[in-house]
Amino acid sequence: MFVLRGVYAPIPTPFVQGEISFEKLKSNIRYWAGTDLEGLVVLGSNGEAPLLDFKEKTALISHVREYLPENKKVIAGTGCESARETLKLSKAAADEGADAVLVINPNYYKSEMKDENLKAFYIEVAEKSQLPVILYNMPRNTGVNLSSELVVDLSYHQNIIGIKDSSGNIAQMSEIAAFSKQGFVLFAGSASFLLPSLLMGATGGTLAAANIAPGACCEIIRLFNTGDFEGARKMQQQILPVNKAVTSGFGVAGLKAAMDMLGLYGGEPRLPLLPLTQEKRVRLREILINAQVLKEG
Amino acid sequence: MFVLRGVYAPIPTPFVQGEISFEKLKSNIRYWAGTDLEGLVVLGSNGEAPLLDFKEKTALISHVREYLPENKKVIAGTGCESARETLKLSKAAADEGADAVLVINPNYYKSEMKDENLKAFYIEVAEKSQLPVILYNMPRNTGVNLSSELVVDLSYHQNIIGIKDSSGNIAQMSEIAAFSKQGFVLFAGSASFLLPSLLMGATGGTLAAANIAPGACCEIIRLFNTGDFEGARKMQQQILPVNKAVTSGFGVAGLKAAMDMLGLYGGEPRLPLLPLTQEKRVRLREILINAQVLKEG
Amino acid sequence: MFVLRGVYAPIPTPFVQGEISFEKLKSNIRYWAGTDLEGLVVLGSNGEAPLLDFKEKTALISHVREYLPENKKVIAGTGCESARETLKLSKAAADEGADAVLVINPNYYKSEMKDENLKAFYIEVAEKSQLPVILYNMPRNTGVNLSSELVVDLSYHQNIIGIKDSSGNIAQMSEIAAFSKQGFVLFAGSASFLLPSLLMGATGGTLAAANIAPGACCEIIRLFNTGDFEGARKMQQQILPVNKAVTSGFGVAGLKAAMDMLGLYGGEPRLPLLPLTQEKRVRLREILINAQVLKEG
Amino acid sequence: MFVLRGVYAPIPTPFVQGEISFEKLKSNIRYWAGTDLEGLVVLGSNGEAPLLDFKEKTALISHVREYLPENKKVIAGTGCESARETLKLSKAAADEGADAVLVINPNYYKSEMKDENLKAFYIEVAEKSQLPVILYNMPRNTGVNLSSELVVDLSYHQNIIGIKDSSGNIAQMSEIAAFSKQGFVLFAGSASFLLPSLLMGATGGTLAAANIAPGACCEIIRLFNTGDFEGARKMQQQILPVNKAVTSGFGVAGLKAAMDMLGLYGGEPRLPLLPLTQEKRVRLREILINAQVLKEG
Repeated sequence: MFVLRGVYAPIPTPFVQGEISFEKLKSNIRYWAGTDLEGLVVLGSNGEAPLLDFKEKTALISHVREYLPENKKVIAGTGCESARETLKLSKAAADEGADAVLVINPNYYKSEMKDENLKAFYIEVAEKSQLPVILYNMPRNTGVNLSSELVVDLSYHQNIIGIKDSSGNIAQMSEIAAFSKQGFVLFAGSASFLLPSLLMGATGGTLAAANIAPGACCEIIRLFNTGDFEGARKMQQQILPVNKAVTSGFGVAGLKAAMDMLGLYGGEPRLPLLPLTQEKRVRLREILINAQVLKEG
Repeated sequence: MFVLRGVYAPIPTPFVQGEISFEKLKSNIRYWAGTDLEGLVVLGSNGEAPLLDFKEKTALISHVREYLPENKKVIAGTGCESARETLKLSKAAADEGADAVLVINPNYYKSEMKDENLKAFYIEVAEKSQLPVILYNMPRNTGVNLSSELVVDLSYHQNIIGIKDSSGNIAQMSEIAAFSKQGFVLFAGSASFLLPSLLMGATGGTLAAANIAPGACCEIIRLFNTGDFEGARKMQQQILPVNKAVTSGFGVAGLKAAMDMLGLYGGEPRLPLLPLTQEKRVRLREILINAQVLKEG
Repeated sequence: MFVLRGVYAPIPTPFVQGEISFEKLKSNIRYWAGTDLEGLVVLGSNGEAPLLDFKEKTALISHVREYLPENKKVIAGTGCESARETLKLSKAAADEGADAVLVINPNYYKSEMKDENLKAFYIEVAEKSQLPVILYNMPRNTGVNLSSELVVDLSYHQNIIGIKDSSGNIAQMSEIAAFSKQGFVLFAGSASFLLPSLLMGATGGTLAAANIAPGACCEIIRLFNTGDFEGARKMQQQILPVNKAVTSGFGVAGLKAAMDMLGLYGGEPRLPLLPLTQEKRVRLREILINAQVLKEG
Repeated sequence: MFVLRGVYAPIPTPFVQGEISFEKLKSNIRYWAGTDLEGLVVLGSNGEAPLLDFKEKTALISHVREYLPENKKVIAGTGCESARETLKLSKAAADEGADAVLVINPNYYKSEMKDENLKAFYIEVAEKSQLPVILYNMPRNTGVNLSSELVVDLSYHQNIIGIKDSSGNIAQMSEIAAFSKQGFVLFAGSASFLLPSLLMGATGGTLAAANIAPGACCEIIRLFNTGDFEGARKMQQQILPVNKAVTSGFGVAGLKAAMDMLGLYGGEPRLPLLPLTQEKRVRLREILINAQVLKEG
């Protein structure tokens, strides 16, 4: 049975001349496979999932599973605006060998996304998905927040096993950890609040920064588990500027540029995302060097 | 050459047991064909476009074009998160005989949707689309606003012919009308501000209320054009509660319920949208009766 | 009996070395007195009311009334966070000879400002205020919107005579005009949507731009009233960039700088507002010249 | 020299028939004096500061200082919209014997509250205030956030000694703790995230819940300091529902009602705040009983 824990990297999708390059994907995965990452998330926000079509999505899940050693897990982002499409993609994820699905809430019809709508959506998906369902709360992108009351309620469905919360609202995350069903997993959605999340009951996280600094992310958990809170805090503080740069600071284009600097393949994002400007690259490099993620020179 | 003007109804998509019913679509279109509507918008927000897959979208454009008399126009909503998918769907729209495409701005990566991203997106789409492009601003759903500066800038592209602005921000709409390229068309995105939009330079609108009260909507334009402002205002005021009920008030489910009450086929929306509760149906019926859209009894 | 109509200028408060200069106020008022303005609003958002203390506020009302010819009206902004303080200031306004009070809604406790709170607040103020009460909706500053339902409800109180709506939401303003009590006055809160407001039933406005271009603002109303819609629209379009510059564009500091350029006294705003930078002054001058509000050279 | 640490209760202002009751204040303070609270915050959001006038504010500071034993500290909330009024009230706070001032950022002119405005405001206040200045970030009420970059910048002013951050954004709080000047104090603004704040470097908090459950709040800090993280987390989880009820859940009226239930004096808030409904009182009582803050019966 699948257990959600440890650090996952929500991997970017490598494009060469606008098309997915499975070769680049393979070589990136070779790097991640050699780290302490528990697994990879394919088709997350960092994977530009909203910019891919169904066929590309399915092919990505398939290739990630193929390239990644069996001891590493694969979570597929399958949330779409309709329950119907979400289920279709979740079925494909199951067929391609993913371990679980990560389902962002629908959000286009914002003012109608009441708790009852979101509940009906998630129950429908959980009922019919072969794979265990992980909720995904990302209000900065969706403009909708999954309240702790809703999440606690949904935690009692047997096929909903956890939540990736990217809100950064630690009170909300604490409520989820405290009041959800025994065994329901809280996962930090960003490295910027990994340590406080662990303290309040999270068991790991899906962290953009884990793409480029998997060691540091895993080390925070290790130090926390061994009771070295001072060391964990130092590591957490060190990762803050790096994490900001590759998330809210410079976005997916920033994450991709950082990967390029580190010898992985990042490349360019798809329109409407734009490649990082030269000026921002200079600032990004400085941040990476200061945090010792990148060696000077 | 296609001229954008008059009233369009952004039609709902009829589902029977979760699947599109082209039969119901056909009978609805028979009704709209007999009105003064300039044409129909297929795949708009009211059409639940985000809840449809590519094949369903293509089939809808095709059938709407087939069922609608040749003298009526078809505008297809083809905006997707990526320029790539938007272009793929716009090509299909051209192949299926649509007259123009209505392109909502990408919005998932909200904080990165700067004017330069939106401009790059729209220029790419406009350059490669066979059909003329109409911008679509719907901040209530997207969480992103197309500024008047951006719209004025884009108005100078020869394949961008107008904007459907659903913001209700009349100052912004006035700026667009005043400063965009000669011939660029301003279209009201809601019946609730059709008349003031006309006064400031709009030539028509794409109006949810036009699905159920096409006569009243067209009459506002006719009265305005003949200089009967008093009559136009009265008609505008009468349509306000009806329009609110089928838009921000009760949403797509409300529009569909109203269609059912009027003898058209509305049916149920797709998850995560939910059918209108009985209590709301009672209030909706009252509103329709008060506005003389529905006869009592 | 006081009738709300025509154009009011919400006047800035002139500071010299941080203190109110009644001399500068007097000379500014001499200018406005010679125009077609119906009256002045003292202690509005443009008057930096939140940055003044009670004594300064009372003195301002008193001096404005003293300096302004009797045929011109004075409206005093007296809305504070508490009903108690609002009433205290409203009493002072009555004592100093103001004609009406303009009451912005309390907004610090945003999440608690439900319709029932706002209704209780306004009813309490209206019951006890000697002067007629004008509601003031300014969501850009308050983060709270006065819904049309609430305003229509409040319009039935005999001492609540109208609303200055600065939301720019023309559908909401249309609903207010259509459904409020006969005689309740809708006032545009910005020159950027004066004309469409008039069309939907407004009788005038309180307009930042009226401080520097009172003639143009009054002319829009005159043209509208004589049925010259084409002329009114042209004038409305011409005022758009000027209005934007002295409101959302460059703020109160921009309005004050514009007044300085025009030979009135603007001066500097109080902290936390900052004087306009030199670069923005250059752009402001251009805008004023382009709109023929300022003569070149 | 004043050191910011431990738990402060931001006390409500007791009204009897609309006027401050210093007698009720005295008896409430007698209770708090007997707890482990480090001190009290007078004139915070919970103190309905925006609903009080200058004279009431000064009298409150004076009486709180008089009634509270000398070994307990008094922090006065003195932030107003203008630097001028903030300084006037800060001077009064110094005269009345307060230990420090808590200064919320101005927020009425939201769109103009850029970092440079906020910086100029706080530097002016810090330069001229006799008492040490504590920044106060409360975006839920102000609609403006003090960014970590701004706070880090301001931390280098010698008279700005810390920040009470009520944002609940733990990543931001972590950045402040990590990058501000050595000795600058981070204070949690709500009991709902006290423990994770401590882990990231906070030394205490100003907590609405401390008014009614000072023991539990102080115990979280004690357990944390002794390294009993498991115990601290349990206590933190227990306080969550209580804290929510007396903050975002039921607001100031909820806090006051809870005080009444516990034998302190809460009373009614001032308009536009409304007393708690009977139905909400029932739910509040349940929450207090479940958390063992109130004994059943």
